[in-house]
Amino acid sequence: MSITKLAITFGRMALCALCVCLVAADNVSSQFPAGYRLWVHVKSTLIGPQFQLFATEGGIHHIYANDKALQGLRSGQFPDGAILVYDLLETTENGGVTSEGARRRVDIMRKDSRAYSDSGGWWFGRFMGNDRQNEMLTPEHRAACFTCHQKRQKQGFVFSEFRE
Amino acid sequence: MSITKLAITFGRMALCALCVCLVAADNVSSQFPAGYRLWVHVKSTLIGPQFQLFATEGGIHHIYANDKALQGLRSGQFPDGAILVYDLLETTENGGVTSEGARRRVDIMRKDSRAYSDSGGWWFGRFMGNDRQNEMLTPEHRAACFTCHQKRQKQGFVFSEFRE
Repeated sequence: MSITKLAITFGRMALCALCVCLVAADNVSSQFPAGYRLWVHVKSTLIGPQFQLFATEGGIHHIYANDKALQGLRSGQFPDGAILVYDLLETTENGGVTSEGARRRVDIMRKDSRAYSDSGGWWFGRFMGNDRQNEMLTPEHRAACFTCHQKRQKQGFVFSEFRE
Repeated sequence: MSITKLAITFGRMALCALCVCLVAADNVSSQFPAGYRLWVHVKSTLIGPQFQLFATEGGIHHIYANDKALQGLRSGQFPDGAILVYDLLETTENGGVTSEGARRRVDIMRKDSRAYSDSGGWWFGRFMGNDRQNEMLTPEHRAACFTCHQKRQKQGFVFSEFRE
């Protein structure tokens, strides 16, 4: 192989590798629901030390819904593209006032009935703290999420209800 | 005056009265920020019994902003038409889980720099419970609101800051 051909071959390989990296990066970043802080606020709940899951769920969590998820919350039928966010924050208490603190994590449910037919059409995801790149759940975690959400089959597998 | 002319005159009077009623009703109902539950959620705070204003402020309150108010929260300059809502709900506690209860009241700040130049351009309003018709603040109440909000002149007279 001539040096010219070798250079072209290496060049093509490098380009392919770059393409793979860019596609992978896009897949990862697109999992995080960018802009969810501007979505509709469904409801909030404060979890204190008495609750059995305080270690992992302690703090205040807000539920946010994109337009399609709001449609689902109102109709019970969640269309593909619906996304719900569970935004968990630490809290601080001072003189009876409990305020929001740092973000603990962001959990996500995204509806894609074809891709996730084994879990009611829902994909479950998790980003720790303010990280928006590294989705943390394993297949076993996702299965555990769905096991619990199955209790709400009649409500489209969603626990939260929109507070008017 | 003939009976025909009398009837026409009474008819016109009745029509005028109806117009006045409709305009008045529109003014009252337009004070309530319809649809605010779909606006951006700015932040939330829980007020417990230890806080000195628990009697009136106890519960969880959420702050919502319309698009213009969000613009103001980000820039420090609130344009006319900005509206902020303080949505105060009762809470119930069970096993360490504090959940949202009934609505206590909805407070409002609406920016109109010409109409309310004496109070930094802000109008202050209040609707108790789920009532959306009867705005409850007296001029003295509104003045008291502004006295406290004056502390935040540099922030456009607004206490809340948007949690990203």
